[in-house]
Amino acid sequence: MSEPTKFVLDEDAIPTHWVNLLPDLPGEPLPPLNPQTGEPAGPPDLTPIFPMGLIMQEVSPEPEVAIPDAVRDAYRLWRPTPLYRAHRLEQALGTPAKIFYKYEGVSPTGSHKPNSAVPQAYENAQAGITKLVTETGAGQWGSSLAFACSLFGLECEVFMVGSSYDQKPYRRSMMQTWGATVHRSPSALTESGKGQASHPTGSLGIAISEAVEVAAQREDTNYALGSVLNHVLLHQTVIGQEAILQLDLAGAGVPDVIVGCVGGGSNFAGLVFPFIRATLRGENSIRYVAAEPAACPTLTRGVYAYDFGDTVGLTPLMPMHTLGHDFVPPPLHAGGLRYHGAAPMISGLVKAGVIEARAYRQNETFEAAVQFARTEGIIPAPESAHAIRGAIVEALAAKEAGEERTILFGLSGHGNFDLAAYDAYLGGTLEDPEFSEEDLESALAALPANTPAIA
Amino acid sequence: MSEPTKFVLDEDAIPTHWVNLLPDLPGEPLPPLNPQTGEPAGPPDLTPIFPMGLIMQEVSPEPEVAIPDAVRDAYRLWRPTPLYRAHRLEQALGTPAKIFYKYEGVSPTGSHKPNSAVPQAYENAQAGITKLVTETGAGQWGSSLAFACSLFGLECEVFMVGSSYDQKPYRRSMMQTWGATVHRSPSALTESGKGQASHPTGSLGIAISEAVEVAAQREDTNYALGSVLNHVLLHQTVIGQEAILQLDLAGAGVPDVIVGCVGGGSNFAGLVFPFIRATLRGENSIRYVAAEPAACPTLTRGVYAYDFGDTVGLTPLMPMHTLGHDFVPPPLHAGGLRYHGAAPMISGLVKAGVIEARAYRQNETFEAAVQFARTEGIIPAPESAHAIRGAIVEALAAKEAGEERTILFGLSGHGNFDLAAYDAYLGGTLEDPEFSEEDLESALAALPANTPAIA
Repeated sequence: MSEPTKFVLDEDAIPTHWVNLLPDLPGEPLPPLNPQTGEPAGPPDLTPIFPMGLIMQEVSPEPEVAIPDAVRDAYRLWRPTPLYRAHRLEQALGTPAKIFYKYEGVSPTGSHKPNSAVPQAYENAQAGITKLVTETGAGQWGSSLAFACSLFGLECEVFMVGSSYDQKPYRRSMMQTWGATVHRSPSALTESGKGQASHPTGSLGIAISEAVEVAAQREDTNYALGSVLNHVLLHQTVIGQEAILQLDLAGAGVPDVIVGCVGGGSNFAGLVFPFIRATLRGENSIRYVAAEPAACPTLTRGVYAYDFGDTVGLTPLMPMHTLGHDFVPPPLHAGGLRYHGAAPMISGLVKAGVIEARAYRQNETFEAAVQFARTEGIIPAPESAHAIRGAIVEALAAKEAGEERTILFGLSGHGNFDLAAYDAYLGGTLEDPEFSEEDLESALAALPANTPAIA
Repeated sequence: MSEPTKFVLDEDAIPTHWVNLLPDLPGEPLPPLNPQTGEPAGPPDLTPIFPMGLIMQEVSPEPEVAIPDAVRDAYRLWRPTPLYRAHRLEQALGTPAKIFYKYEGVSPTGSHKPNSAVPQAYENAQAGITKLVTETGAGQWGSSLAFACSLFGLECEVFMVGSSYDQKPYRRSMMQTWGATVHRSPSALTESGKGQASHPTGSLGIAISEAVEVAAQREDTNYALGSVLNHVLLHQTVIGQEAILQLDLAGAGVPDVIVGCVGGGSNFAGLVFPFIRATLRGENSIRYVAAEPAACPTLTRGVYAYDFGDTVGLTPLMPMHTLGHDFVPPPLHAGGLRYHGAAPMISGLVKAGVIEARAYRQNETFEAAVQFARTEGIIPAPESAHAIRGAIVEALAAKEAGEERTILFGLSGHGNFDLAAYDAYLGGTLEDPEFSEEDLESALAALPANTPAIA
């Protein structure tokens, strides 16, 4: 082989700005709405739980937002992350396609999540906040915020979705090692949790309600969200900016297709937004594929409507693809993709036809994950396995067409905390949950009334 | 801060040769001995379980051994590994010392072990071997060999020390994900295992006996050892060679002291041998500190004598620091350091006064590990935590002396599979086992008789 495999950059190549795609989006902007008044939600709706620095990033009209020095310094702990050419996977597939992957699993927490946790902790510390509260599904976000809080001297409290809390005790220990306090959600600590006390698995929506409720009660305490919101997607754009430099290093030019997994959408947005800006300006014709779980098919089966970000209805209403805010996805090992909605910016781009969405079953994603591990070495997170599945589908399509296409996918994290799921898959006992039409119908019936039609 | 934190190299900087320190060692060479004849063991003693390619590396008189292209290609999957400057840890300690660490946890298995697993799998595949059998303690070596076998199309069978098998089911799943078969040791599959069937925790020595026994039975099956032997230490010298280039990049010059953890000794050797060559030639005066567990104090409390590498007595006799081949260390979370002996090359250098040895208690290593995680981000393996403890001791000594010393330590792996131990430490329930003088006396009494005195 003896061909370059891994394209690395030194610290000077860490981006100095984040890419804000908000001013580029097609169509009229759809503001979030205050659920009480039905009016556009502005900064005053957000100040009880977010610092002004992040609110300004959330609504910024500027195409680029400077990364503070202290954040860039913390990024040095793991960024730039490597870009890989998947020679061994290509050989195993017998495809003429060139497959590249951008690997975010080298961060201390093993995923892309610290890219946003660090600037969120920083902005809150700057604002004099002493404690952050959040929710976590698979544990990736909670551990990333715990890590970021340890860097900036903040306390950290995490509501962890019950099913993940039970399946992944080591993610809890990880958060505690960085000094955080962790509760199983639904908990008895909040009204939101008490109202859902009998829920067996919990959900991201319920955990968000609990965290928001706690954060809203104290002036020195704020909330932090790991996906969905504009400023979170913004922070993740370091991924795609680095990838552009690295594809250049690899002499690969512009990819034909970019694949990523989507739960809330932040890792996908981080990878694709720097490319999409050029696409929207007519400078390239890249295809973008968002891969999601068939059991929680927000983009492929949800409606595009105003909905709450949480289950109880504490957040502003956001325009997004949604399965309904009280839809509770079946337990899935890709806990980070178990969310009823998708980021408004991603949803808008799907609606506009810029991003395609695909749904994959749990077992076929693990099949792809094991093939990847046995060729490329890295054992991927179950979330990232959706992107691998999507990339393999694209590579086989290129083989079928006899075309040497260039495929880039996002490997958002490693699967070191997901080996119970691999065990089940290899033992033939992994569940392969179906999507329930009845659950969808009843969840959609509970969508908030009297919101503007946007479909 | 805004000072360089991470020093990365691109793939072209992966070493082309391994550093063979054998010809540099002080004093007369002490050959391994055939335990039946008492005569020096040569290649014929090793051919039943090792391929000739590795045997020639084991006894090579050349100062450098070329790395085969296919091995270097596989190294591209994670090498070169990063060198870090520990700015945040230095600040927390208030030390004038500059602390650097070479981080091997970015490999697919999370430790330095693939550095040797890959060339071992390669040489066996070249020799027409179809299956490798090995033992594993913490699971680092077994998973690395499983990964390496998956790259070269070999079957892999692993005997895993009982206490680790019970504590770390996810390491087993990891090996299986790469296609390996895993047995709890002692097992009922071998005579060696049956003879120790009632042993509650097992030990590396017993597991080695089982693996060697299986490998010796079939022509197409070989054995692979993850530490101790000359060729394993040789393979690890990519670590130190890269570190020399990276310290140069950092403008740091020659370190005053280098610290690493020692179980069998391969990660430590890999880091320090490229530096020690220059030390032995009088070109620098670096201090070398080998950090080991106080509960398994091979270098600080063992004797320097000929002993078996395994418990049952199947291996050649090797000149080494040993606690006696039937010494069974108490259960420790640093499973990779739970070995009765130390590599002959390391033992000789300790004997010669080139390497200093220090022993640390389990709780003080976890204290260091948590301080490291909360400053530098990475949660270290319990083995690596011994090196961190040693580095902190050196950094505080520099502070005491008011001297700006340069400290390099080896961070051999991450602790993602060790979070149960962190949980126990943070909960105040981590055991802190003592070393037993009586156990030592009885184990030393069982040393093989009639071997040449070497102390």
